[in-house]
Amino acid sequence: MTETTPAGATGIRHWVLTLVCTDRPGIVHAVSGAIVDAGGNITESQQFASLDTGTFFMRLQVEAATERGAFEAKLAPITERYGMVWALDVVGRPLRTLVLVSKAGHCLNDLLFRQRAGQLGVELPLVLSNHPELSGLAEFYGVPFESHAVVSAAQKKEFEQRILDAVDEHDIELVVLARYMQVLSPELCERLQGRIINIHHSFLPGFKGANPYRQAHARGVKLIGATAHFVTSDLDEGPIIEQNVVRVDHSRTPAELVAIGQDEESRTLTQAVKWFAEHRVLLDGARTIIFR
Amino acid sequence: MTETTPAGATGIRHWVLTLVCTDRPGIVHAVSGAIVDAGGNITESQQFASLDTGTFFMRLQVEAATERGAFEAKLAPITERYGMVWALDVVGRPLRTLVLVSKAGHCLNDLLFRQRAGQLGVELPLVLSNHPELSGLAEFYGVPFESHAVVSAAQKKEFEQRILDAVDEHDIELVVLARYMQVLSPELCERLQGRIINIHHSFLPGFKGANPYRQAHARGVKLIGATAHFVTSDLDEGPIIEQNVVRVDHSRTPAELVAIGQDEESRTLTQAVKWFAEHRVLLDGARTIIFR
Amino acid sequence: MTETTPAGATGIRHWVLTLVCTDRPGIVHAVSGAIVDAGGNITESQQFASLDTGTFFMRLQVEAATERGAFEAKLAPITERYGMVWALDVVGRPLRTLVLVSKAGHCLNDLLFRQRAGQLGVELPLVLSNHPELSGLAEFYGVPFESHAVVSAAQKKEFEQRILDAVDEHDIELVVLARYMQVLSPELCERLQGRIINIHHSFLPGFKGANPYRQAHARGVKLIGATAHFVTSDLDEGPIIEQNVVRVDHSRTPAELVAIGQDEESRTLTQAVKWFAEHRVLLDGARTIIFR
Amino acid sequence: MTETTPAGATGIRHWVLTLVCTDRPGIVHAVSGAIVDAGGNITESQQFASLDTGTFFMRLQVEAATERGAFEAKLAPITERYGMVWALDVVGRPLRTLVLVSKAGHCLNDLLFRQRAGQLGVELPLVLSNHPELSGLAEFYGVPFESHAVVSAAQKKEFEQRILDAVDEHDIELVVLARYMQVLSPELCERLQGRIINIHHSFLPGFKGANPYRQAHARGVKLIGATAHFVTSDLDEGPIIEQNVVRVDHSRTPAELVAIGQDEESRTLTQAVKWFAEHRVLLDGARTIIFR
Repeated sequence: MTETTPAGATGIRHWVLTLVCTDRPGIVHAVSGAIVDAGGNITESQQFASLDTGTFFMRLQVEAATERGAFEAKLAPITERYGMVWALDVVGRPLRTLVLVSKAGHCLNDLLFRQRAGQLGVELPLVLSNHPELSGLAEFYGVPFESHAVVSAAQKKEFEQRILDAVDEHDIELVVLARYMQVLSPELCERLQGRIINIHHSFLPGFKGANPYRQAHARGVKLIGATAHFVTSDLDEGPIIEQNVVRVDHSRTPAELVAIGQDEESRTLTQAVKWFAEHRVLLDGARTIIFR
Repeated sequence: MTETTPAGATGIRHWVLTLVCTDRPGIVHAVSGAIVDAGGNITESQQFASLDTGTFFMRLQVEAATERGAFEAKLAPITERYGMVWALDVVGRPLRTLVLVSKAGHCLNDLLFRQRAGQLGVELPLVLSNHPELSGLAEFYGVPFESHAVVSAAQKKEFEQRILDAVDEHDIELVVLARYMQVLSPELCERLQGRIINIHHSFLPGFKGANPYRQAHARGVKLIGATAHFVTSDLDEGPIIEQNVVRVDHSRTPAELVAIGQDEESRTLTQAVKWFAEHRVLLDGARTIIFR
Repeated sequence: MTETTPAGATGIRHWVLTLVCTDRPGIVHAVSGAIVDAGGNITESQQFASLDTGTFFMRLQVEAATERGAFEAKLAPITERYGMVWALDVVGRPLRTLVLVSKAGHCLNDLLFRQRAGQLGVELPLVLSNHPELSGLAEFYGVPFESHAVVSAAQKKEFEQRILDAVDEHDIELVVLARYMQVLSPELCERLQGRIINIHHSFLPGFKGANPYRQAHARGVKLIGATAHFVTSDLDEGPIIEQNVVRVDHSRTPAELVAIGQDEESRTLTQAVKWFAEHRVLLDGARTIIFR
Repeated sequence: MTETTPAGATGIRHWVLTLVCTDRPGIVHAVSGAIVDAGGNITESQQFASLDTGTFFMRLQVEAATERGAFEAKLAPITERYGMVWALDVVGRPLRTLVLVSKAGHCLNDLLFRQRAGQLGVELPLVLSNHPELSGLAEFYGVPFESHAVVSAAQKKEFEQRILDAVDEHDIELVVLARYMQVLSPELCERLQGRIINIHHSFLPGFKGANPYRQAHARGVKLIGATAHFVTSDLDEGPIIEQNVVRVDHSRTPAELVAIGQDEESRTLTQAVKWFAEHRVLLDGARTIIFR
């Protein structure tokens, strides 16, 4: 990871450290010892031991005058001893994020507005779409926008290659499906696993298929919502990151349910992206650990 | 329906009137005309025309010095002309309600406490159970309690007959499955259709089967909830009356999800019973109209 | 009111009618009779009789082949007999709305995006501001934007005159204070009474003064929110239209509370504007009736 | 503190440890080192450094085969070095809790039902009241109940002495005002500071005084709620533990607002008691830290 946030005149830098390993006694002591050795001060700490998988998860924020190399040198013996999967980043460094969209703009608008407002720790080098409609919105926020027709199987293959190229080219850390209405190939899902997030246009688990709001209307549900989840090759069954619902009543038409659902979609997706960018989302098998 | 609320010295009585018919122009004018003729004043009125079924629904509260017979005589030409399904009741008359339970007491406790507190317009002549555990709770509130072992097919048949007998004996208007853990026969469901409510021990639509909270945990859902619905012979697929959810996170064990879910179950069921008792729940095919 | 929605080839038009008068028997019958005479069909109807003020409120949607003049002629005898304050409009006609802003763009962005998305029944001929910062946002959505420095008392007077001129010039029906950070003069508030809405940058009733989020933080509140209300000359004490809250915890800094609060502000204000534009907000003394 | 939960055949015991001290580097390392020395395994850990007061807060759950004395001996050098206020308890040990009530039973009912259901980690040796009405409810749950008339100043003094005596006699750790409608003397509040919780019969901050729901109705609020807070001598201004709200509309009478508010009161108070009993509530000046 590149450091883009300067340490400032004092040399103090704010680090975020995530650690995952098999649970056993002494981890916290060992990790906190390395931090003390590095002259660091823990400003935020969360941990969780999963009884399901026997895995230990930890997220720390640490203020330290240490350079990355020196900090990593202190951590290395610990991460090796415990066989940890770990990541060290600068707090607030914007995550390089690629957004995929189709025609509906509500999710993209929310992401762009909040990114500019400084509420969302991402940078957006590119928006890719299979439709041209949202180019104006992206341009207003100064974000490059590319659209390609994706109708034939060949075009789909080309578009997926374009996604992978863009990921390489822009050193992308997160791909966001902001109401991108094409099913991705299992190969692409696997290539991007753990760093691709989707917003489900309905309520997982629940109504599936082409027109969930019509199903919801037919059944007379009293709550509708949205689910942000990791994309896996098993469509719409990836680990859930965030869910929201809102109350509705019998007087709502399917069209109104769509409008209400879109609000839930945009706020749910933005929340999931925000947490991911802050390294607050960790995977525990089919579940997520969210260190809010 | 029996009138149990006296009209008082002034002779003024507060009526609730529900009407269902095929939608066409002039209904409101015709109904309000009959009310004017009966010397009534509309104090609350709600209506809904379903685009799905072409059905018109209306619920009125009317203050009038009229006796039931005189009021009905004014309404009769209108209800006949429009082919209305209708009901006239006194506002606040408690609905005769039979409660079925098994071992879990959270829903029964909520119903009993609120009934005594005057917040729930029901009277409870009997609680029937397939287990003896909750007899003390019912007795504390002075409600007769009967339990019968229901293990064999013969016992199940007998118990269902006991339910039907109790419905006749106590002139029951509503049957509430307050976490009654036996599947009812399709015959019984049909006999009681439209006046039997269940609380689903999970979130409809969603995880089904024996252990929904374990499934919810495995998938890492971020919201859990409960659904109150009419019982139909198609198990757990009856029209939805009310739903609630509450936020949970990864740290919750399946046992904690159960406890949290139970709170949602009891408040959701009580709300559904309250609305039903106030004649606020009407059926529109597979959906409910709730005149809150 | 001008009709801007064409009646279509069939001549069928969808009307919204609001009525306010002293409560007494027979109103519904009389009004519905006029509608029947006009060949109309009621598609939505809500009413409320306020026990506080003895006032009757009604909102109707009516499909009719009638022109405005003919419809009004049928209604006139009724509105006169009952001394009604009433309004007749075409369903979906966008309300001419003037928005006032300062520097914070979250509310304006939400209004503009939803207006363009067709979810908000307003047209926006002008945005007025005491700061230039938000001109780009307005321009992206093609809405004229004017900013004037408002520092001295003379400038304030001129700006308020500009507001009144803009109201006349654009035939404005609603003025929205979308985080406009100047106190309006009592004279202006009175001139615009009943058609000017504010979003309170905090939770009414509750913490008042310059820095409510800092107060909320100091007290350790667990919920923060926003209130949309009519502006009266009694600052922040006008009738409440909508309120929302969201849960927070001890880890939130005052800056984070501000960001969270802004989300509540924008969705609360947009909701209030939407209801007002649909003629769903009626005044009952210091309270509002919301026919959702 | 007494240990009432046996350690079981394996000798493994589950401890909860809370620590409060001035924030400085190295605390986590020092504490986790003592736990490693004691052969413990951290199963849950939460910490927070308050920027407002410069105080560091930590709550740990630790599985260990250690006896209390041995564990404390390992901790002592650390707690002394850092000047910690700390507490060590067995996870799940029920807190000895005294409940004070007047006539309204909704909060008491919720506490009793959940205590019996095993969802609330308290034992209830006594309920004290200034009215006899709720004796039957307490007796049903087998909890001793005492009522004393509290009208004169002398009676009030005697009753407060009875409270203090009961606190001593039953070794009370928490006093809960479950809608106790008398103002306590500043002396009593100070004596019990940090271990006495109240449920505010309205929404703090907000409407104060004798009839908050009537005020809320008059103003037409769209949300009502309840606040559980520590009692201080500054009435209703103590640190907030939990708040909840629920949506209401114009059609609610003051009496209905009371009923709705009572639901929020009971669930909010029960939640606050539950967290306190689990040592999840720590004080940071006028605010609370809640380690949920």
